[in-house]
Amino acid sequence: MSESTEPVLHSRDARGVVTLTMNRPGNFNALSEEMLAALQSALDRVADDASARVVVIAAAGKAFCPGHNLKEMIARPELAYYQQLFSQCSRMMLTIQKLPLPVIARVQGIATAAGCQLVAQCDLAVASTEAKFAVSGVNFGLFCSTPSVPLLRNMAPKQAMEMLVTGDFIDAEQARQRGLVNRVAPPERLDEEIESLVASILAKPRQALAMGKELFYRQRELGIEAAYQLASQTMAVNMMEGCAQEGVTAFTEKRKPKWN
Amino acid sequence: MSESTEPVLHSRDARGVVTLTMNRPGNFNALSEEMLAALQSALDRVADDASARVVVIAAAGKAFCPGHNLKEMIARPELAYYQQLFSQCSRMMLTIQKLPLPVIARVQGIATAAGCQLVAQCDLAVASTEAKFAVSGVNFGLFCSTPSVPLLRNMAPKQAMEMLVTGDFIDAEQARQRGLVNRVAPPERLDEEIESLVASILAKPRQALAMGKELFYRQRELGIEAAYQLASQTMAVNMMEGCAQEGVTAFTEKRKPKWN
Amino acid sequence: MSESTEPVLHSRDARGVVTLTMNRPGNFNALSEEMLAALQSALDRVADDASARVVVIAAAGKAFCPGHNLKEMIARPELAYYQQLFSQCSRMMLTIQKLPLPVIARVQGIATAAGCQLVAQCDLAVASTEAKFAVSGVNFGLFCSTPSVPLLRNMAPKQAMEMLVTGDFIDAEQARQRGLVNRVAPPERLDEEIESLVASILAKPRQALAMGKELFYRQRELGIEAAYQLASQTMAVNMMEGCAQEGVTAFTEKRKPKWN
Repeated sequence: MSESTEPVLHSRDARGVVTLTMNRPGNFNALSEEMLAALQSALDRVADDASARVVVIAAAGKAFCPGHNLKEMIARPELAYYQQLFSQCSRMMLTIQKLPLPVIARVQGIATAAGCQLVAQCDLAVASTEAKFAVSGVNFGLFCSTPSVPLLRNMAPKQAMEMLVTGDFIDAEQARQRGLVNRVAPPERLDEEIESLVASILAKPRQALAMGKELFYRQRELGIEAAYQLASQTMAVNMMEGCAQEGVTAFTEKRKPKWN
Repeated sequence: MSESTEPVLHSRDARGVVTLTMNRPGNFNALSEEMLAALQSALDRVADDASARVVVIAAAGKAFCPGHNLKEMIARPELAYYQQLFSQCSRMMLTIQKLPLPVIARVQGIATAAGCQLVAQCDLAVASTEAKFAVSGVNFGLFCSTPSVPLLRNMAPKQAMEMLVTGDFIDAEQARQRGLVNRVAPPERLDEEIESLVASILAKPRQALAMGKELFYRQRELGIEAAYQLASQTMAVNMMEGCAQEGVTAFTEKRKPKWN
Repeated sequence: MSESTEPVLHSRDARGVVTLTMNRPGNFNALSEEMLAALQSALDRVADDASARVVVIAAAGKAFCPGHNLKEMIARPELAYYQQLFSQCSRMMLTIQKLPLPVIARVQGIATAAGCQLVAQCDLAVASTEAKFAVSGVNFGLFCSTPSVPLLRNMAPKQAMEMLVTGDFIDAEQARQRGLVNRVAPPERLDEEIESLVASILAKPRQALAMGKELFYRQRELGIEAAYQLASQTMAVNMMEGCAQEGVTAFTEKRKPKWN
């Protein structure tokens, strides 16, 4: 099987930048069972790659991702099958949050339903000016309940509710203003904008990012006193690490830190 | 008693669009005990109406709602009375969230204190360009504590805190930018804007909206793993419903879904 | 020791406006152990001052605050020391939230790392147009975990995450749009803007602000039903207080309330 036939292309450069490209442009990279399994496997591979530094989730063709594969779904009208399918998808989404390195969505074209959820679930997102976002399952009678989980955590509730009950698109600039994406760039400058984020992340020590990302999502679910307690402990442990000892020493000596 | 003397006018069109119009323009539609009871009763009636599809909460006259009826309140300086009054109001507000269909606030003129709370508590809100919002109880020594509950869930905390401690107004465009309302329209186009939201909601199956709305508010209070678990189960059940089976089939057959 | 050598200048006017000015411009007002202890002590003094009405946290010199004192930290590479240091800092931050009166950050120049956290933790913030904000610890290998606690509660998560992993600055206007600060003013009008907030707060009764602020942060951590229950009880008790009885009576009599 040639690489171009894989549902997810896995590329990794010498710097540890992993690009996972959804590669079913023929059906706009729908999250079929095959695609979900391939994404899960690719993310698990990143989790085992101790020198991976940052992940970019990209897509081949004109669309980012339209969500689930509806033909596949309608062919098996069984509760147990649907439960397994949505659990599989949710597990993949949560794997993104659990990875010990930043995950960036690179969004061109449409990102709808679970495709919009995928953008919301990434730590960071950069969109092309022509990208469009919707949670449009309600248009065919299937409310985007699982997409609502990260959507509600990424924009004001009335904005999320409007998208969920109307199925309407918002454009890239609206997505940026609401907090769903970090940056917007013209198509020809999209990779440049991603690279500037990637380069910034690569300049930081992996260990500090790993500890910080884990803490970020854990403290979000705590009351503020418990959050401060956990964060204080995390910072103390982080400060004892070699990366911080070297980084802070370098700062006080007015030189650049030497990290491997 | 002629309908025009009712505190809340209840109109319902053939499509299932229920409009509840607060109808005490003489006192700007204050949330008197009478008004709270009438709103509760009208919302309970909607809950029992299996073919109601969407609710619009509107107001007669120049103002939307100035909050509680202060004359009524000051006449009975008893803790038990105030406890009962605020519980009655909170119960009405929560009833909006529990209704199995979208509730849209139609805001003209001022919406202050519990009137602003009412806007925040609705699922969606459309405001006239001349609408103004404040949580102004602090101006007469009564901090808007109950309004702070949905306000804090609809805008950034420092923005909410500033409104609560100053009592200052924000205009409709600021309310939109902060997330308190979805859309803003000139007075003469306010009903048209509401109608476009209503029409979009009517084009979706009632069952999917009911399941989705309930899930939306339940998952908001859960950690992300529990939220995904509940949402996955909701989507699986939703997918087994007739509305989704027909909707997804129609989609794969490139035709419009036939829903009753 | 002359007052100008104190790490925190404590001034209080006849109206009860307390201004705490971090006063180590030579090291940009870093949160050294000395500075943290002085802030804690100053905040504790405010807590004991029954007629203090509002606190402004300001800074002398060109910068607001660059966060922790790195020279001090690197000199004692001991886990127990770091644990104690971050606990001390977190305790000071939480004291701001627990004070029964509004706390306003007055931000000029840079506010980075725990300096940015200090801005986020205040109830309100006013920034000079030239102020800049970053959580830049990651630049020297120390992820800003404790700053992420209030940061994530003051802006959308992807915006917070981008700041945390890049260490990049945002300007005052971006900070305002995201919700990190309330108002932005040119340097020469910064104090005027603070004074307008202060004057508005002074016109409200202390007791109502105290009850409301406590409720605001407590209800934020509750589910919405429990939040409404607590808020209803708070409002009933507030309504029985002299300030509300007089305020509401004055309102119904169309006169100004007479509060001491």
